[in-house]
Parts: sequence; structure tokens; C-alpha cells
Amino acid sequence: MAEYKAPVQDMQFVLTEVFQADQLWASMAATQEVTPDLVHAILEEGARICENELFPINRSGDEEGCQWNDGVVTTPAGFKEAYSTYAESGWVGLGGDPEFGGQGMPKMLTVMFEEMVYAANTSFALYPALSAGASLCLLNHASDELKQTYLPALYEGRWTGSMCLTEPHCGTDLGIMKTKAVPNEDGSYQISGTKIFITGGEHDLAENIVHLVLAKLPDAPAGSRGISLFVVPKFLVNDDGSLGERNPVHCGSIEHKMGIKASSTCVMNFDGAQGWLVGEPNRGLAAMFTMMNYERLSIGLQGIGLGEVSYQSARTYARERLQSRSPAGAQQPEQVADPIIVHPDVRRMLLTQRAYNEGGRAFAAYVGMQLDMAKGHPDEAVRAKAEGLVALLTPVAKAYFTDRGLDVTVLGQQVFGGHGYVREWGMEQFVRDARIAQIYEGTNGIQALDLMGRKVAANGGEWVRSFSEEVNEFIESQTGLEAYTQPLADALARLNEATDAVLAQVKEDPNAIGAASCDYLNLFGLTAYAYMWAKMAAAAQGQSGDFYQAKLQVAQFFMQRLLPESQGYLAKVLAGSESLMGLPDDAF
Amino acid sequence: MAEYKAPVQDMQFVLTEVFQADQLWASMAATQEVTPDLVHAILEEGARICENELFPINRSGDEEGCQWNDGVVTTPAGFKEAYSTYAESGWVGLGGDPEFGGQGMPKMLTVMFEEMVYAANTSFALYPALSAGASLCLLNHASDELKQTYLPALYEGRWTGSMCLTEPHCGTDLGIMKTKAVPNEDGSYQISGTKIFITGGEHDLAENIVHLVLAKLPDAPAGSRGISLFVVPKFLVNDDGSLGERNPVHCGSIEHKMGIKASSTCVMNFDGAQGWLVGEPNRGLAAMFTMMNYERLSIGLQGIGLGEVSYQSARTYARERLQSRSPAGAQQPEQVADPIIVHPDVRRMLLTQRAYNEGGRAFAAYVGMQLDMAKGHPDEAVRAKAEGLVALLTPVAKAYFTDRGLDVTVLGQQVFGGHGYVREWGMEQFVRDARIAQIYEGTNGIQALDLMGRKVAANGGEWVRSFSEEVNEFIESQTGLEAYTQPLADALARLNEATDAVLAQVKEDPNAIGAASCDYLNLFGLTAYAYMWAKMAAAAQGQSGDFYQAKLQVAQFFMQRLLPESQGYLAKVLAGSESLMGLPDDAF
Repeated sequence: MAEYKAPVQDMQFVLTEVFQADQLWASMAATQEVTPDLVHAILEEGARICENELFPINRSGDEEGCQWNDGVVTTPAGFKEAYSTYAESGWVGLGGDPEFGGQGMPKMLTVMFEEMVYAANTSFALYPALSAGASLCLLNHASDELKQTYLPALYEGRWTGSMCLTEPHCGTDLGIMKTKAVPNEDGSYQISGTKIFITGGEHDLAENIVHLVLAKLPDAPAGSRGISLFVVPKFLVNDDGSLGERNPVHCGSIEHKMGIKASSTCVMNFDGAQGWLVGEPNRGLAAMFTMMNYERLSIGLQGIGLGEVSYQSARTYARERLQSRSPAGAQQPEQVADPIIVHPDVRRMLLTQRAYNEGGRAFAAYVGMQLDMAKGHPDEAVRAKAEGLVALLTPVAKAYFTDRGLDVTVLGQQVFGGHGYVREWGMEQFVRDARIAQIYEGTNGIQALDLMGRKVAANGGEWVRSFSEEVNEFIESQTGLEAYTQPLADALARLNEATDAVLAQVKEDPNAIGAASCDYLNLFGLTAYAYMWAKMAAAAQGQSGDFYQAKLQVAQFFMQRLLPESQGYLAKVLAGSESLMGLPDDAF
Repeated sequence: MAEYKAPVQDMQFVLTEVFQADQLWASMAATQEVTPDLVHAILEEGARICENELFPINRSGDEEGCQWNDGVVTTPAGFKEAYSTYAESGWVGLGGDPEFGGQGMPKMLTVMFEEMVYAANTSFALYPALSAGASLCLLNHASDELKQTYLPALYEGRWTGSMCLTEPHCGTDLGIMKTKAVPNEDGSYQISGTKIFITGGEHDLAENIVHLVLAKLPDAPAGSRGISLFVVPKFLVNDDGSLGERNPVHCGSIEHKMGIKASSTCVMNFDGAQGWLVGEPNRGLAAMFTMMNYERLSIGLQGIGLGEVSYQSARTYARERLQSRSPAGAQQPEQVADPIIVHPDVRRMLLTQRAYNEGGRAFAAYVGMQLDMAKGHPDEAVRAKAEGLVALLTPVAKAYFTDRGLDVTVLGQQVFGGHGYVREWGMEQFVRDARIAQIYEGTNGIQALDLMGRKVAANGGEWVRSFSEEVNEFIESQTGLEAYTQPLADALARLNEATDAVLAQVKEDPNAIGAASCDYLNLFGLTAYAYMWAKMAAAAQGQSGDFYQAKLQVAQFFMQRLLPESQGYLAKVLAGSESLMGLPDDAF
């Protein structure tokens, strides 16, 4: 059966020993009160609610799913109670702005908590994740009045958020959307249109739902420069903060999906619903994008969380399942067979899971650290460098975390053999739940285009060089760690070669970016994980104790048995677009 | 929405132009009547039943699933009627022995038909697939009396077959099974025990079910050398062939699974059921294994079939879905956006699907050809070489087809974006249905161990050398095809290097085989596909027409954009077992 204990020790290792987060937090005004004791308490309390409240309703939530009945959406048994507990304990506003009742915790810490929530119950996790995203968007772009109206209730979890972007005929290409916003005389707008795939668009967990909606003003220019952002509450809010009339925005149906079945995915019909402009007219897409780096990192964590719960479950099964003998001779001769963890190929699967999970966790903290530094570091040069790294690394994190999330959950299922395919064991749910993370919040193909086009080619590789220099400095600063730093250096050289090759290709070939993008992102992700594993090895080297020994062992596994894939990715990037573009459309 | 047309033209290309099957069949006594006209008719008729009868009930079968009620299993609406049509048209006995009413078609042809059936409806396909497997086992090992009793009804499809191996505590390690067989005075046996994961163990499609059951005789030696094989019918068979008493073998429950929901997966309770010995006492596992090469190849086809239907559906969606503009400028300026097939990364996904599907199809035909030659070629040396290749290549085919089957169905789902995750579009079912093929009929990890241990290391690489020589001869026989044969030669050199490395490792390291197995199998599979793509390119080169041009284009894609992964696999094999075995069990 599936099991989950939040990996608090590893999280603290990453924060404190790998990245010296305590020192960083002490150095920035916004995080000076984030002490080691507070961090420890948050991780321990977070672990408790995830393990005891959210994980126990994960399987049942998958079996029951959300139900739609005449516009009313009911979540599975236990979700409403768990959500109340979660909200009342203050978890929704963990990273929120203290000015409006948030707890102001740094992203580097909240990524750890978010990973736990996704691990314990991905469907559940999406409700507060959307609230956090909507809050961030309002915080950055809404008027003070709108912030005062919505943020405290969102942070408290009394209300939840949703993001309404996609329409039936457009997802990636939002410039062709049809939803309209017509001005009212009082400065508000009438929103009309249909949005699909709206996560948490309707449900029974909270008393109000705050929709952030992209729509076009009557005089809007065509394309993506003519999109505006509106806040549209399910219930209108009276001046005293109490709830007023029902706004004409209704859930027409919910999708029946492969997974995340306890998360409502809604068709939302806006029939002249009253909304308020957020930010500037026609700048809605830009407003949405300023929060994308946060949201995409968060969705990436879904891959790591599901990978972790899959690993823990598979590891325990591999220790208990007796089947065949070790190739080195019986290890438990008193038993009818040895536990399958003795087999090298089972270990390969488990170690692959673990190397990706822990590499991903460290990289999430690293990207979170860049976000925190970009926002609040006193040194302007540090802020500027961190901003570039955030832009560069976010698509890598989102896509690489979630692609590996699928691989890792598939491996965990494989360890269980036939039992992995049977629903009651829980392992196949992790696969189904992980699969969506490669698709939503911008497909991983879109992430790769964002990386290769906007984040690398558009600035001539400036941000990659910045990253590359940092990695090189790290390599040069180490001694006695060649078993880790040499493979890292080799991978970095491949990444740099790939970057140079694509920068040369784009001068002559408009298809070069799209042809290279996916393989380039994988090469980047592998190299970034290698950097993380080398840093973890550096932190573990020379320390005594099983935890540190295991770190070094898994680092070795990563370098020897996963990183070599970078060779193939480089070759694919170098091959260019010819073999992709030669086949006529109608010959497919 | 999902769509499927059987790829008959490609199948005929593979059979006739790549492998000159007509000449081979004419040269062997058993297949002399297999003429080009007959083959064409079989493929066309097969396509018709798959497209018109089986594919339309695939989605509904997934939604409805099988139902269990007090031991009775009901298949979804339409399955019973479709099965009657299928059986009455003679498809169950397509590859069966003509002496007992089978049609005697060569494996090289039946693999093509089987692929179609899996593509159209994998759940359905499993019922006749089990019948074919059980029939083959009886044909090779049962007494004439048992053959006369069971084979004609199985070939006609009036009865179906099942294979009862797995028990709750053992799957891979059958030596520790507990099911018992006690001799009766009349020469039959009383079978008692519980078997799990029995595909088609109970259902409503046919009037009788013929279970092949592994069990232990009272005096059986311990372990896998003490297992015997029995035939245990659901209804006892009277001397005149009519059905008699109900045998006490009952379905205790069915599993609720990730996919193949219209295929019943049964817990079967044998409560002193009457059975008859098949073959020699205590040689049951060997009897089962003689049919494994056929069954494993068949299950492999599930991966190709599901890959094909996923590809066809994704290709059509990519032509119709309008979203964003081509990086080379608007291709359909009169439309609101270009179809997504213009994007290099969408093409990468579609071409990857296609390269694996068509490479796999050719490799299936190639392995089928070896099976046919091993069985009936007049030249003893050819038979001997073919036998070795069958043994060597079958685990590669089963595991590589099905691992790529998952990859390919995931890619097809990805092309659909959010719609791929919604059940009604059908793409996610292919992923769920494909996933089981990596697990059953021996997990792919077990296939890799079989390859690396029994098929390579055990004979010092003899069969690999035989394969390698054949590939080298092909390379040397070609001129003007360097774009395909040079990458093939490079991959073959990597495979040979990996083989030599493992043969050296095993002398000192008992874990070497398990450590290398999975990556070695992937390296082998890639190299085998490269051989197929080079052979297809050779057959297409110089011919005019879109079909041949597309073959050359996809061959180029395979060589440039997929084959480079062989570099990483070699590096992983060379790394040995150290990084796998160093971590203590309790440190996982």
C-alpha cells in the first residue's frame, strides 16, 4: 500500500546545509524573522497535516471524484473538513503578504511545504495553490481597494481563487480568445464568455470563489496585446466585506479526467457577470505572466511530491516483497525468497526515483532562493542576476520536474509488478495524477519553447552564461570531489556546446528553436540536477552518519547512471531541424 | 477524437518489400499456400473487423468495464456480439494448426493482424490472445486425446483459454507456488489453490473456458523443477464433446485496474477442480516456456498497436487544431491561426511516435519470420540460426515494444494538450491500456534479465554475434545508403562494446547482469530498430511515390533524433553495478 512521511530531514539539509538559507534570510529585511526554529516548526507542522489529514483522503477522493449536479460541485467525502482544518491553521496564506494577513514566508521554504501537499493529495493541493496564485496576481496588479476586498479572505482560505484563461478554441494561443468585457457606468465590467479547464472553478470548500478572468474590451487590439484581466467573484462582496448577490458565473459541467479526480475541472459560463479590471487595460496577459514564474514552479512541485510518495511506497514494498534470490546468493535463507530490494534492477528503479526526487527538491529550493533574492536582496547586482536566473530556470523546473515526475511514478508502479496496476494499491493513481502536470500551466513543450526562445536565444545566451559561470565557480572551488564535479563539468560543456549551436542555427533557420527546444530543456535539466547533486555531495562530504553516506551514494548513482543521457540530448540538438521539417503535412 | 485505420499498406510493404515474405513462404512446406492474394485478403478483412466491430466498442468498454456478480463476470455492452462475429469469421484460429481446424497462417502475418486487434481494442484482444496461447501450449505438450478434446473448440472460438500462473505471494518466482494437484484414480487430478491476475479467467463471451494451470504434485521437488501443468475446463467435457458438469473452479472477484477495464482480471479459486496433466510431471514450467516466445511477442504487439492508434489520432488533431503561427511565418493566413502540425516540436512528437511504431512493426515481422523459419525452414543451419535469434530477440521485442508503447501513447496524449487528459477524447485510455504491457507476461525488468543473463551471458554472446554478423553483412551489402548505415554501424559498435563489457564484468561480479540488463536491452532495441529502419530505407530508396519518400524521411529522423540515445545507454552499461549496490537496504 502507498505510504508517505514528509522528508523533513532532507528538506532541512537542502535549506540549511546546501544553501545556508538561514544566513540569506537573516540578510534580507522581508525574511529576518524566519529563524531556524520557525522553519523547523513549519516543516514539522506541515508534515503533520499532510500525513494525517490530506493523505488519508487521497485514495478515496480518487475513487469518489467530484460530482456535478445542476451547477453545484461537490468534493469527495472528507475534503470539506480537511480544507477547513488546513485553512484555519493558516496554510493558505503561508507565502502571502503580511500587510493583508499573509505569513510572508520565503518561497524557498514554501516550495518544501507545497511539495508535501502535492505528495499527500495532489487533487486537494490544487485548491489552495490556485488561491495562492490568484492572490499573488492581485497583490502585484490590483488596486488597493481590490486588494483590501479580496486578499485577507483569500489568505485566510475563507475564499478560494481560480484562473480563467483557456477557452474551447484556445489554450496556448490566448490572443484569439473570445470572452468579452463591456464597461458598466460604475467603473465595473460585464464579462461574457465560456472558459474551460478551470481548476477549482466551482466547489463546496469555501464560501466564495474569486475568479481571475482574461477577456477582451470592446475596443481591444487584436491578438495577445488586446487582453485584459478582471476579478469576478462568485458572490459579489458588500462594502462591509459580507457576501451579497450571486454573480451570473456558473459551472456548466466538470471534466471526467485521467486523474486528479478530486480536483474540479470546470466549464465556466460568464453570462454578464460583474467584474473589476485588474491592472491596465489590454495588459492582462503581462499581468498574468508576472505570476507565472511562481505558479509554474509550484506546478513543478507536483512532479516532485508525487515522485516522493511513489518512491517511499515502492521502497517499502521492495523491502517486504519476497521473490527470487539475490544473484550474489541467498540473503535471507530463512525466508522462502529474498526481498526484491536485493536485485540490482530493482535498485536501479528505486535509485532513479530517489535521484530525481532529491535532485528536484534541491533545484526547487535553488529556484525559490533566486525568487526570494530577486524580490528582496539588498544588493542590486544580486537581484539582477537572480531575476535572470528565475526567468531562465523556471521553465526548466516546471517541465523537468513534471517529466521526471511521470517517469518516477511509473517506476514506482513498476516495482509493484501486477499489484502496481491494481487501483487499491494506490501506485497507479500517482501516475495518473502526475500526468496532468506535464500539460497544464503551459505544456512542457511550451516551457521548452519559452526556455530556448525567450530565455536563451532572445538574449544571445546571456542568462545561460551567467548560470554557467556560477557552476564553473563552484566546480573550481571544490577539491577532492572530482567524482562529482568532473561529470558535472562534462555535462556543462555539453550544455554550452548546445547553446552555441542553437544560437548559430537560429541565424539561418526559423525552425531551429522549436527543433532544439525539448532536447535542450532535458539537457539543461540534467545539468542543473548534476549541479545540485554536486552541491549536495559537497555538503555531505566528510560528515559522518547514514544520511550523508546515502547522499554521496545517490550522487554517485546520478553521475554514473543518469547524467550520461546528456550525450544523446546534445547529439539531438546538434542535428537541427532538417529531419523534422522535411515531411510534408499531408504525409503524416 | 480517436481514430483508427489499419496500416495495411505499411504492413504489406514490410512483408513484401522489406522481407520478401512471399519467397520465404513459397520455400517452406507449411506456408506454400500463403499467396500474396491471400495475404492481401486477410489484411483487408482483418482491418475491416477491427475498424468496424472492435474499435467502436473500445471507449464504451473502458467506461463500463467488466462487472462481477456472485462469480459471474459480464463484459461490457457489445463485446459478446463482437466476439461472436470475430470467432465465426475464423480469426481465433488464424495461426492455429490445420490438423485441428486452425488456419495455419505464418507468425509473420499473424503479428500484423494481432497489432490491428490491439490497436482497435486492447481489452477485447486479450480474450482471443489467451486462447491462442493456450492452444499453442496444448498443441506442443498435450496428449492427442486432450488436443482432440480442446483444440478445435478453441480454434473455433466457441471456448476460450486462460493461463493460471500467478498466486498472491508469487509472480516472477513461480517456484514457491502453493496450488496443489492430487491424483485421482482415473488418471485425472484434483486441483486446489488460488490464482490471481488471471486474464479472461471468467467472462460471458464463450460457452466454456479452458484453464491451463500450474500446480505442484504431492511428491514434487521444491522450487521451479517441481511444477506441473494441467488443463482444467470450466465445464467438464463429455466424450461426445458436449459440455457436462460444472467444474469447481470459480471467480472470486475481479481486479479494478488502471486500464484494460473491459478485460476481466480474475481471482480464480480451484476447489478440487478436475484437471488433466499436460506433458510430463514436474516439467510444467518448461512447457509454459516453450510458448512464451510466441506470447511475449504477442503482448509486445499491444505496445505497437496502441502506439499506432495514438499516432493516427494525434496526427489528425495536429492537422485540425489551430493555435499560434509557424515560426517561419503564417502558413494559413486566412485562418485565425496555423494548424499545430507546423510547429517543429509537435512534429518531433509525431515523428517519434511514427518512427517507433513503424520500426517496431518491422521488427515484429522480423522476429515472426525467425519463428516461422525456426519451425519450418528446410535448411537445418537456417533453422538453428533462427532459433537462436528467436531466443535472443523475443525479450527485446516484448520489452522494447511495450516501453516505447507507453512513450508513444504519452506523446499522442501530449499533442492533444488539455483535451488529452479528458476521458471523452480517448487519448488517455491508450496510455492506461499500454501501461499493463510493461508489467504482465514477465515484467520488462524480467525480460531484460532474460536477455542479459540467459540469452547473452550464458552463451558467451554467441547469439549476439550471430545477429551482429547479419547486420554487418547488410551494411556491407549496401551502397549509397550511408546516411542510414553509418549511424547503424555506430550503434552496432556500441552494442558490441556493451556486450563485451558485460561478459567481462560477469566474471567478477554476480550483480553485473542485473546492473546492466535494462540499459543493455534499450541499447539492443534501439540498434535493432536502426537495423529495421536501414532495411526499410534500402527498400524505399530509388522508388517513387509519397509512401517511399516518407519512409526515407522518417528513417532520417530515427537516425538523427532517436538513435543518439544509444550513447547514454552504453555509458550506463559500462558504469557497472557499484553505484547500485553500495547503498545498504535500510538506507533506501
